[in-house]
Amino acid sequence: MTEHEGPLHPLSRKECLELLQYHGFVGRLGFIDGGRPMVLPVNYLADDSAVVFSTHEGSVLGSLAAGVDVAFEVDDSRPLDHSGWSVLVRGTARAVTDPEEVEALRRGSLRSWAARAPELWIRIEIAELSGRRLGRR
Amino acid sequence: MTEHEGPLHPLSRKECLELLQYHGFVGRLGFIDGGRPMVLPVNYLADDSAVVFSTHEGSVLGSLAAGVDVAFEVDDSRPLDHSGWSVLVRGTARAVTDPEEVEALRRGSLRSWAARAPELWIRIEIAELSGRRLGRR
Repeated sequence: MTEHEGPLHPLSRKECLELLQYHGFVGRLGFIDGGRPMVLPVNYLADDSAVVFSTHEGSVLGSLAAGVDVAFEVDDSRPLDHSGWSVLVRGTARAVTDPEEVEALRRGSLRSWAARAPELWIRIEIAELSGRRLGRR
Repeated sequence: MTEHEGPLHPLSRKECLELLQYHGFVGRLGFIDGGRPMVLPVNYLADDSAVVFSTHEGSVLGSLAAGVDVAFEVDDSRPLDHSGWSVLVRGTARAVTDPEEVEALRRGSLRSWAARAPELWIRIEIAELSGRRLGRR
């Protein structure tokens, strides 16, 4: 390791939540699709207990509506000094079905950059949260 | 969809390779770990046929050495106009075992930002390559 390459520092839950909520806007969703690993980017919103994103029915992501294990990763990096951070959420993805909740989400600030109607809101309940920082703060 | 939210345009193989090789430096590796989906960021190098990264023995990523299916995703986004691109590689990850090849990789420009010795080089042969662009070019 060179002096630029600091060790990995684990992040506290509070740090993870702050990075997840205020410093990321696109995350990468990992899931198992037909027995094979898959990763797709989604724009998202998060609070202390869940990550939400919207997609549309019939899409690959729409297949997550039924309740499946996912990994959701957000990161940022600075190539200049090889520093960065990443936060990992593991949990179960499920469609948001409560009409009032869907309406609140629709009125909110999140619009999928890619989704077309009919939109489908997916929530990942945060079951496990971890993060690490690499190199300089 | 608002006028800012253009449709998804599939990218050609040539465009995917150029973005993968020259416009990304950290990718997200999706794999199945103990039956569950997992996503971790890695810094990488790519050519027309493979993605390589280094990790260290005994790490979670070290478990990929034996030859397992992975998804490797690289993206970039501009929140201002909701545009971006993503490239997805699917293939099999395996440890690089040829001593000459390992030596060439060691002498090359890629250093893991996080790995400690003894380092382990992993290669993903590109079996499937796809990409998409969202919004304005």
